[in-house]
Amino acid sequence: MMTPAFRGIIPPVCTPLHDDFSVDVVSLQRALEFLLDAGVDGVFVLGSTSEVAYLPDAQRRTVIETAVRQVAGRVPVLAGCIDMTTLRVAEHIAVAQDAGADAVVVTAPFYTRTHVAEIEQHFRLLHAATGLPIFAYDIPVAVHSKLDTAMILKLAQEGVLAGLKDSSGDDSSFRYVLQGKKDRGLDGFAVFTGSELVVDNLLSIGADGAVPGLGNVDPAGYVTIFDRVRCGDQAAANAEQDRLLRLFTIVGIGDPARIGRSSAALGAFKYGMKLRGVIDNAVLAPPQLPLTADEQVRIKAGLVEAGLL
Amino acid sequence: MMTPAFRGIIPPVCTPLHDDFSVDVVSLQRALEFLLDAGVDGVFVLGSTSEVAYLPDAQRRTVIETAVRQVAGRVPVLAGCIDMTTLRVAEHIAVAQDAGADAVVVTAPFYTRTHVAEIEQHFRLLHAATGLPIFAYDIPVAVHSKLDTAMILKLAQEGVLAGLKDSSGDDSSFRYVLQGKKDRGLDGFAVFTGSELVVDNLLSIGADGAVPGLGNVDPAGYVTIFDRVRCGDQAAANAEQDRLLRLFTIVGIGDPARIGRSSAALGAFKYGMKLRGVIDNAVLAPPQLPLTADEQVRIKAGLVEAGLL
Amino acid sequence: MMTPAFRGIIPPVCTPLHDDFSVDVVSLQRALEFLLDAGVDGVFVLGSTSEVAYLPDAQRRTVIETAVRQVAGRVPVLAGCIDMTTLRVAEHIAVAQDAGADAVVVTAPFYTRTHVAEIEQHFRLLHAATGLPIFAYDIPVAVHSKLDTAMILKLAQEGVLAGLKDSSGDDSSFRYVLQGKKDRGLDGFAVFTGSELVVDNLLSIGADGAVPGLGNVDPAGYVTIFDRVRCGDQAAANAEQDRLLRLFTIVGIGDPARIGRSSAALGAFKYGMKLRGVIDNAVLAPPQLPLTADEQVRIKAGLVEAGLL
Amino acid sequence: MMTPAFRGIIPPVCTPLHDDFSVDVVSLQRALEFLLDAGVDGVFVLGSTSEVAYLPDAQRRTVIETAVRQVAGRVPVLAGCIDMTTLRVAEHIAVAQDAGADAVVVTAPFYTRTHVAEIEQHFRLLHAATGLPIFAYDIPVAVHSKLDTAMILKLAQEGVLAGLKDSSGDDSSFRYVLQGKKDRGLDGFAVFTGSELVVDNLLSIGADGAVPGLGNVDPAGYVTIFDRVRCGDQAAANAEQDRLLRLFTIVGIGDPARIGRSSAALGAFKYGMKLRGVIDNAVLAPPQLPLTADEQVRIKAGLVEAGLL
Repeated sequence: MMTPAFRGIIPPVCTPLHDDFSVDVVSLQRALEFLLDAGVDGVFVLGSTSEVAYLPDAQRRTVIETAVRQVAGRVPVLAGCIDMTTLRVAEHIAVAQDAGADAVVVTAPFYTRTHVAEIEQHFRLLHAATGLPIFAYDIPVAVHSKLDTAMILKLAQEGVLAGLKDSSGDDSSFRYVLQGKKDRGLDGFAVFTGSELVVDNLLSIGADGAVPGLGNVDPAGYVTIFDRVRCGDQAAANAEQDRLLRLFTIVGIGDPARIGRSSAALGAFKYGMKLRGVIDNAVLAPPQLPLTADEQVRIKAGLVEAGLL
Repeated sequence: MMTPAFRGIIPPVCTPLHDDFSVDVVSLQRALEFLLDAGVDGVFVLGSTSEVAYLPDAQRRTVIETAVRQVAGRVPVLAGCIDMTTLRVAEHIAVAQDAGADAVVVTAPFYTRTHVAEIEQHFRLLHAATGLPIFAYDIPVAVHSKLDTAMILKLAQEGVLAGLKDSSGDDSSFRYVLQGKKDRGLDGFAVFTGSELVVDNLLSIGADGAVPGLGNVDPAGYVTIFDRVRCGDQAAANAEQDRLLRLFTIVGIGDPARIGRSSAALGAFKYGMKLRGVIDNAVLAPPQLPLTADEQVRIKAGLVEAGLL
Repeated sequence: MMTPAFRGIIPPVCTPLHDDFSVDVVSLQRALEFLLDAGVDGVFVLGSTSEVAYLPDAQRRTVIETAVRQVAGRVPVLAGCIDMTTLRVAEHIAVAQDAGADAVVVTAPFYTRTHVAEIEQHFRLLHAATGLPIFAYDIPVAVHSKLDTAMILKLAQEGVLAGLKDSSGDDSSFRYVLQGKKDRGLDGFAVFTGSELVVDNLLSIGADGAVPGLGNVDPAGYVTIFDRVRCGDQAAANAEQDRLLRLFTIVGIGDPARIGRSSAALGAFKYGMKLRGVIDNAVLAPPQLPLTADEQVRIKAGLVEAGLL
Repeated sequence: MMTPAFRGIIPPVCTPLHDDFSVDVVSLQRALEFLLDAGVDGVFVLGSTSEVAYLPDAQRRTVIETAVRQVAGRVPVLAGCIDMTTLRVAEHIAVAQDAGADAVVVTAPFYTRTHVAEIEQHFRLLHAATGLPIFAYDIPVAVHSKLDTAMILKLAQEGVLAGLKDSSGDDSSFRYVLQGKKDRGLDGFAVFTGSELVVDNLLSIGADGAVPGLGNVDPAGYVTIFDRVRCGDQAAANAEQDRLLRLFTIVGIGDPARIGRSSAALGAFKYGMKLRGVIDNAVLAPPQLPLTADEQVRIKAGLVEAGLL
């Protein structure tokens, strides 16, 4: 039996779709193998990068089931259970558990005006309802509140939270979590960053791993960073991160005067995956608007420059 | 056969719950009769005030079915179809349609970083997928984007949107919608405000109606305002609105240092309804935290002062 | 000796400039006479619409001195004393007092992260330092905090504040101020709105007056609204407000993809004043960028449509 | 003649005040010597940490003159020229130049709704008006806009900007500036971070220096970090940064339910300096509210724990 390690590079897997927006299972399987071949330490399905906000429940279930079956225990499978509040999230967790996920990833409540005490209550109730490890997902750009550092550490200490996936972009609060973890001896509490442009630095100061959306396009790059940091070769880690910094500019090619910034980023990731032969179709779920042909040309140039094509 | 009119006072109905968070159908039926007795012109279930963000799909379905059956065509039933993006909302619309709702109410996409062109695409795709009239629900406090006035008017003119429920608090943009409606001769486009403290003024300049959360506690007050404006007695409408302004302070009694502002407001509405004998149980769905006994005393005093107890 | 009344239409006067950004005193005198001819009840110099944020202290002093001398007691002159915190504002107040202003207008502290208790302290200290009446200026779009209703009413009751100029756009909180004023019998506390598109409604529910930026271009329109509301002819007030609603669209003609929204609005006001012969030069202070020739053509069309040219 | 180097640790110097809020020149001189003794590479007066937003022009001038005279060319003196827009900032720059500052530090326009093209225009006009090197000061928490990376690099290349002081907390955009600097060979462009909790990491990836507010209390700590990174001893740099992370918690001791967050931070710095014998008086400029005695006790404990007392 596998013991989930929750350490290293765990990309948030893009969800390939058919033109009718059903899940392209074959492409998803190929994407998972592509990541595993690159040496990732886990996969995170149904995160923001997976278009989880766009997928109906049936597609969500298909994604988890496909991932669990395909990965087959080689690495842990984390499943995003993204919904507005406790009872709705609890239903997603039950599905994830039933499908065999190794851990679930949960945000603060959104749509509603919440409070730190209610966010804490949210995680406690969900922990009481499932045996699965719960990662808190700190993503203010989506849920419009920031997780409180003291609350995270308290819930980590009590065993309510198994980890943190921090996409807040606030490296100072992240560092306080790392320091608090160390002070409290919370070795098993997995602290991951979603800030894909500073993975080298955050690993070097003690982060357990990273969840880089760009890892869909270039997982090997992030695996290299993790590996180089582990070996104490910070200069090489920095150099690889700098290469990925350039590649990451593809997320800004979609014109913000014409389409949403989520569409621009997810469209770039998916088109990059298609160019690399990982998925068949770069279509985005509605109502996201597509990249133009010209934008696609520039994304291709970005991949060429990064040595990926 | 009833032709939905979409005019007048259409409260967003609170969802009474049992202690296990299942829908208290009997209380919901009583609440609907309470509203109808007061003379409301429609009911809006599964809005933000209905705790829609907190209700799993099964409870949502029960709410619509109960409302349609209980109201039995006496007034239109509007159903909120609140979810993150198009495909998920479309599923809620199908349920609402199946359950017999007269119209659906839909926000801009949320959780994701969207764009006005994608919001427009969202409404167009949903309109193409249903025969039901669609109200755009402008609620930046929840979805963190504001609906564009020009887009609303364009979609109204094309028949994509049947109405607007404006909870933005931006009376200037609301007024531009009213002016644009008049200029384009869009008589059938129903423009409702959710700003429950300025209903008198907005009706007087041409709004078709209001969706006041406070109408759960005092529907007769809002019906009076609508009636007085229709009769040209603005002073009486203002006086009644002023009375409701005082009553509305109950939403701020729950201490914002302790609980969320949504919980404070919804808790006050539900406790007020319980005090008036409309519902049996004022429990809120998780992770909302309850009002204290002291806060309840002060809410009761507010109802007494408003002449409701 | 004149007793300031602080009631009615008090436009925030645009500051005409020469090409070297010195104050065009002759144009300013003409603008003041234009407003007085239209029947305004006061003038507010050095508000946001006056480009106060762009004017060095010498120009600010020139503006107040010019206004006091030109108006010569016919109506009150209010002077904005806009700066970051207490000691700096106090210096502006001393200048305004020395120059003969009848009242000063003061925002919450900005640039710094403040607190309601510190905002209250700010007003108290300034009141202690001057004999002039102080208006609190609620303008979250500029200072990024909202004045607290309870604080305003407390300071009004204690005589610290003589009035409120509310540019928050929050008609609900504005209404609570009006209600609180009435409840406390604060007849002398002057409650003005800066929401120039809903002046008719806010006057009808008890506002003492309005400070409309658009009044630089069409003061007579706002004087008409005030007059019609006073006479109980709300329909005429609404109709005039509706005409001004159309005229106000000139503030959005400057392309937000190219210039700031302040520049677009202030540029439109100044160009409109120039077209009407009120000022000689529509130049804006740096670093604001100018309107294009095409945008100017469209602004002219707006004035023609409104019957002003 | 001294050539300003603009490299290393350049603390933003707190401004000691007398009880009447005049500058305590003797304490300021002592504070400057304290910093120089610790080995800082420059001093930055009249930044946000210096309470620049609270100081009238006369006090501002005193601060620069005192610093220039006291430092006497041993290290460069940077002077914040913080005001709302171009003409007002230009006046502060003239004063700084006259007083002998080596460089000036300028934010984007604030109070007004600006645009990237106007921010660019702002820096260009100021550069045209002074011979002093200009640092762009990126501080969204104060000015509510973020400086654009491409604009910064363009103005650096053209010689309009001599440096960047980045207090945005956005390490990803900071990294793009570093990469762009390298790509363009802008060796003389000084890139400083104000993120005092990640100085070790940002120096290690190429930042030229840091401007840490906490450096008022513990300059030696930051000098150590700079030194250790320069010597390639990242572990020692990390350890020292971790110590300072703990010390930095003093900024959160002032209760945010009672006072502003600026007051809490600046009050903690000043009280820490007083405890260390650097300044005589920890008073803050109005309307900031003071720390309580209990909060002071906890701040003292923080300094003891950090080995500073």
